[in-house]
Amino acid sequence: MGQTPEAVYKHISRVSLGDVIRRSALRWPERTALIDGELELSYAELDRRANAFAHHLLGQGLAPGARVAMLCGNSAQMVTAFFGIYKAGLVWVPINTGLSVEAIGYILEHAEVSRVVIDLELLAKPELRAMLDARGLGLIVCVPEGQAAPGGGAVAFLDTLKGQHGTPPAVDIESTQLAQIMYTSGTTGQQKGVMHSHASIHSALSGNLFELELRPSDVTLCVLPMFHCAQHAVSVSFLMAGATVIVRRVFEPGAMLATIERRGVTFLLGLPIMYGAMLAHPARPTTKLSSLRMCLYVMAPMARTMLVELLEKFCPGGFALASGQTEMYPATTMFKPEQQLKRFGSYWGDSVVTNETAIMDDEGRLLGRGEVGEIVHRGPNVMLGYYKDPEATERARAFGWHHTGDLGMFDADGQLLFVDRKKDMIKTGGENVPSIKVEEVLLRHPAVLQVAVVGLPHPRWAEAVTGFVVLKPGASATAPDLITHCRQHLGGFEVPKSVVLLEAMPQTSTGKAQKFVLRQRFEQHYQDGAA
Amino acid sequence: MGQTPEAVYKHISRVSLGDVIRRSALRWPERTALIDGELELSYAELDRRANAFAHHLLGQGLAPGARVAMLCGNSAQMVTAFFGIYKAGLVWVPINTGLSVEAIGYILEHAEVSRVVIDLELLAKPELRAMLDARGLGLIVCVPEGQAAPGGGAVAFLDTLKGQHGTPPAVDIESTQLAQIMYTSGTTGQQKGVMHSHASIHSALSGNLFELELRPSDVTLCVLPMFHCAQHAVSVSFLMAGATVIVRRVFEPGAMLATIERRGVTFLLGLPIMYGAMLAHPARPTTKLSSLRMCLYVMAPMARTMLVELLEKFCPGGFALASGQTEMYPATTMFKPEQQLKRFGSYWGDSVVTNETAIMDDEGRLLGRGEVGEIVHRGPNVMLGYYKDPEATERARAFGWHHTGDLGMFDADGQLLFVDRKKDMIKTGGENVPSIKVEEVLLRHPAVLQVAVVGLPHPRWAEAVTGFVVLKPGASATAPDLITHCRQHLGGFEVPKSVVLLEAMPQTSTGKAQKFVLRQRFEQHYQDGAA
Repeated sequence: MGQTPEAVYKHISRVSLGDVIRRSALRWPERTALIDGELELSYAELDRRANAFAHHLLGQGLAPGARVAMLCGNSAQMVTAFFGIYKAGLVWVPINTGLSVEAIGYILEHAEVSRVVIDLELLAKPELRAMLDARGLGLIVCVPEGQAAPGGGAVAFLDTLKGQHGTPPAVDIESTQLAQIMYTSGTTGQQKGVMHSHASIHSALSGNLFELELRPSDVTLCVLPMFHCAQHAVSVSFLMAGATVIVRRVFEPGAMLATIERRGVTFLLGLPIMYGAMLAHPARPTTKLSSLRMCLYVMAPMARTMLVELLEKFCPGGFALASGQTEMYPATTMFKPEQQLKRFGSYWGDSVVTNETAIMDDEGRLLGRGEVGEIVHRGPNVMLGYYKDPEATERARAFGWHHTGDLGMFDADGQLLFVDRKKDMIKTGGENVPSIKVEEVLLRHPAVLQVAVVGLPHPRWAEAVTGFVVLKPGASATAPDLITHCRQHLGGFEVPKSVVLLEAMPQTSTGKAQKFVLRQRFEQHYQDGAA
Repeated sequence: MGQTPEAVYKHISRVSLGDVIRRSALRWPERTALIDGELELSYAELDRRANAFAHHLLGQGLAPGARVAMLCGNSAQMVTAFFGIYKAGLVWVPINTGLSVEAIGYILEHAEVSRVVIDLELLAKPELRAMLDARGLGLIVCVPEGQAAPGGGAVAFLDTLKGQHGTPPAVDIESTQLAQIMYTSGTTGQQKGVMHSHASIHSALSGNLFELELRPSDVTLCVLPMFHCAQHAVSVSFLMAGATVIVRRVFEPGAMLATIERRGVTFLLGLPIMYGAMLAHPARPTTKLSSLRMCLYVMAPMARTMLVELLEKFCPGGFALASGQTEMYPATTMFKPEQQLKRFGSYWGDSVVTNETAIMDDEGRLLGRGEVGEIVHRGPNVMLGYYKDPEATERARAFGWHHTGDLGMFDADGQLLFVDRKKDMIKTGGENVPSIKVEEVLLRHPAVLQVAVVGLPHPRWAEAVTGFVVLKPGASATAPDLITHCRQHLGGFEVPKSVVLLEAMPQTSTGKAQKFVLRQRFEQHYQDGAA
C-alpha cells in the first residue's frame, strides 16, 4: 500500500498553483475534474498527467524560471499543460491565439520563451509556423487524441507524457516566485507582460471560492478563452473547489443549452451577448435549465430588459458582474445578484474579500462617496509588475495602491460605479465628458450596432466629442439623425460635434473597440475643416 | 464628502489581520458585527474602535513588535482589543484565564510582555493582581459599560478609546511579520509559545470561508474561549465574511437555546457535551431551531446515538468535526456531515483546502492508505515556530512537514482516522496499543465518568497498559469489574494490567487529562509490586 516516498521541499508553508490540483486530487481523486468532448479526466488522472508533463519539461533541461509559451484554445490538454508548467517551477506565458504573427513574435522575443505549446490547427498556419521555426523554438503540439502527431521536429503533447512518473517532481517553489507572464490585450496598442507569482494568483482563487459560493458539486462551462485572466481564474477556482469544468473552444448557443441540461451545469461565465444568444435560441424554452444556480458576466454591463428576462427565463438564481484586470487578478469587484435590480448603469458593485478598493485623485488622496477619481486597489492579488518595464510598474503602484486606469466613484450606498477609462474621458471646452455616457445614448438608437466615442483634437474645444458608429445590417440612419437623437438625451456639451459612420470597428481580439486606432486615423478630422 | 487622506503603506500586496475588519467595515458598514448582551456593534463601529485602540497603544510609545498580553473571557471589548493590537503592528499574546498565577507569570516573562488587557473580575483576584503589580506592567481593564474603572494605575479599556482617531494608524505591516504568540495548553506540562504571522492566520481564515460555507447572512454564537485557536479562528472567519458573532462568556444551555431562536443563529461551534446538554434541556422541544444550518464540534468525537438524535431534533443540516492545532492554524481537517453517518470512530475526515495532510513514518517516508504513522501537514497556515525554542521548531518541521505528534491513518476511502497521540501509544510486550482504544472501552462501562489510559514502566512488559478511572457520583465498580469489562471488548494484550480508581482526574483548564502527571505520580506502580 506504501506510496512512493516523495521529495522533501524546503518551503513547508509554500503556496503554489501546482499544489491546487494536487490537493484536489488527494481529496477527491475520483471526482471528474475536466470534461472535453467525450474525454472525462478525474482529479487523480489530471494530477498524474500534469506531473508527467512537468517531468518531461524538466527532462528537457529547462532551467528554473524558463518560460513556456502557450498558443491554445480551451482544451483538457491546455489545462494539463499549464498545471505541468506550474509544477515544474517554470513560467507559463499564455498568448492570445487571435493575435497577429508579428504580435506573437514580439511576445516570444520579449518574454524570452524557450518552448511553445501550440494547437495543431494553429501550427498549420504557414506564416506562424515559419516564424516559430525561424526562432528555433521547441514545439509541443496539442493533437486531438487518436490523430497523428505533425512532423518537422514538433512533439505531440500526449506523447510527452509517456514513460514519465505520475508523482510530483522534486522542485522547490517559493510562494512569491514568478509563475506566469500574461500579456494584456492592448486597447492602448502596446502589449505589456503582467507578472504574477504563485501566491498572488492563489489569493484571487481563495477569494473566488467565497465570492462565487463554490462547492464540489458545482459544474461549469468554460467557453471564454483561458489565455485571459477571467476564465483562467474562474476555471482554476473551480478545480480548487473539487468541482467539474467542461472546456469548450467555441461558443455555440444550442450546444451550450444542450450541455447545461445533459451535465446539470450549475454555473456559467460569459459575455452579456452570449446570454442574449442563449435566451433567444429556439431550443431554450424546451431546455431544462433548473440546475443553474448563478451566472457571471464580464466585460460589459447588462441591459435592464435583458437582465429581467434572463432572471425570469434563464437563471432565477441571479446574475453577477465580475470585474478585474490581469494586473489585479480577478475577481476584484463584483456586482452581486441582490444589487442588480436596485440600480442600473455601469456598476461594478463591491470590492471582493481578496482586496481593498478606493477612489483616488491625481495627488494620491482618497476620495469619499460621490466623488469621481481613479479606481485603485491593494491586496495580495496584485501583480509583481510589468516585465522589463520598471517605470510602468512604478506608475501603476504610485501612493501604495494599484492604479487601474479606470475612473469611478462609490455611490451613496457604497456601490462602485465605473465612469470611464481614465484616458477615454473627454475634456471639451472646460468640461469632462465620459465617452461611455455618450456611447450608451448612441447604442439606444435602433439603427446602431457598434459605437466608440473619442475626443479628437479641435482648435476651439481642445477635444471634440466624436462618435464612430457601425449600423446594423440593413438599418439606415444618417450622421445628423444620430446627433439629433443625442440632443434628446445629453447635455449640450456632451453631444458629439460629429458622428462618423464606419463599415467596421477597429477592435481587439476580445471585441473591445481600439480607440487609439480611431484617434490616430482621425487625428486631422477637425483640422481639415470636416466639421 | 471627502475622507481624511490616509497614510500610504509600503506593502501594496500585504495581508494583515487588521485589514480583515477594515475591509468588512468598508463593505458592510451597517451590518452587525458583534453582539455582547445588549450591546450591538456595527462593522463600522467595531473598526473605528479597533483603530482608536491601536492609536492609544501607539501613543503609549510601544515599539513595533511589542507584546500585549490578554487575560479575557469572550467579550466585544476583547475582540475590539485584539484587532487594535493587530492594527498597531504589535503582537497579541492571549493567555488562558484558567491558568495558575505561576503559569501566567511564566508566559508574561517568556513573551516579554509590556502591557496586559485584563477583565475586571480577574484583576480582582489578589494573588494575580499582586503578581502583575510586582512586574510593573501597564494594565488595561475591560470594565462592563457603565461600571467604574478600577484604581491603582489601571486604565479602563473604553477610556483608552476616548479622543483617539477612528481612522487606521499609519503602520507598515509585512504579511509575514509576527502577529501573535499563543501558548499551548500543555498536556505535556510545558507551555510553548506558538508564533503566527498575519499571513499564516489569514490563510486559515480564507480556507474556513470555503469549508464552513460562510455567508454574510450567517449568525453564530461564540462560547468557547477565544484565547484558544479554534474559537478565535472561527469568530474571525465570520467577521471576514460579514456575518454576525454573538459573544458569550459562559455556556448555559437554556440561554443558548433562547438566543438561537431570538437571533436566528445559523451556525454553532461547541464541544459534544454542550450539544448533549442543549439536546437534553427541557426548553429544547419548544424552541424554534430551524435557523441552524450547520454545527461544528471540536476536541472529541461524537457518540453515534447522540449524533443521530441531534440530526433529528437539533440541526438536520448536519454536524462536522473540525480539528487542528495552534501550530497549524485551524481548521486543518474536517469530518464533514456527508461522511458522519457512513463511518464511526475517531475520524478527522478530509484535509481542508488550506493545507495538505499526509501520514509519515519516523524516517520521513510518506505512508499509504491503511498504514499508521504520524499525521503531518504542510501549508501556509503553519506557525512561524515556537518562541525561543529553535530546537523544538526544527523537530516540528522535520522532512519539510509540520509534525503534529498525532498518530493516524487514511482509510480505504481516504478519510483520516486519528489513532492516538504519538506519545500516548503504549508499547507493551512488542505490541502497540492506542490508549484511546482502551479509553473508549472503559467509557462504555455505565459506572465510568472519566478515564485516562497510559503505559507505565513494567519489568516484563516494558510498558503496562494501565487505566485511571473516575466513577460517576453514586456509581460503584471495582478495578476487577472494569478489567473484566475490558476483556469482553479488547484483545488480551490490550486489556489493562491494572485499573486505578481516582477521586479526581488531573486535567488541563480545557478538560484534557494530563497523562504526564499520571505517569510521574505512578512511575513506580509496577516496580513496587502493586500489580
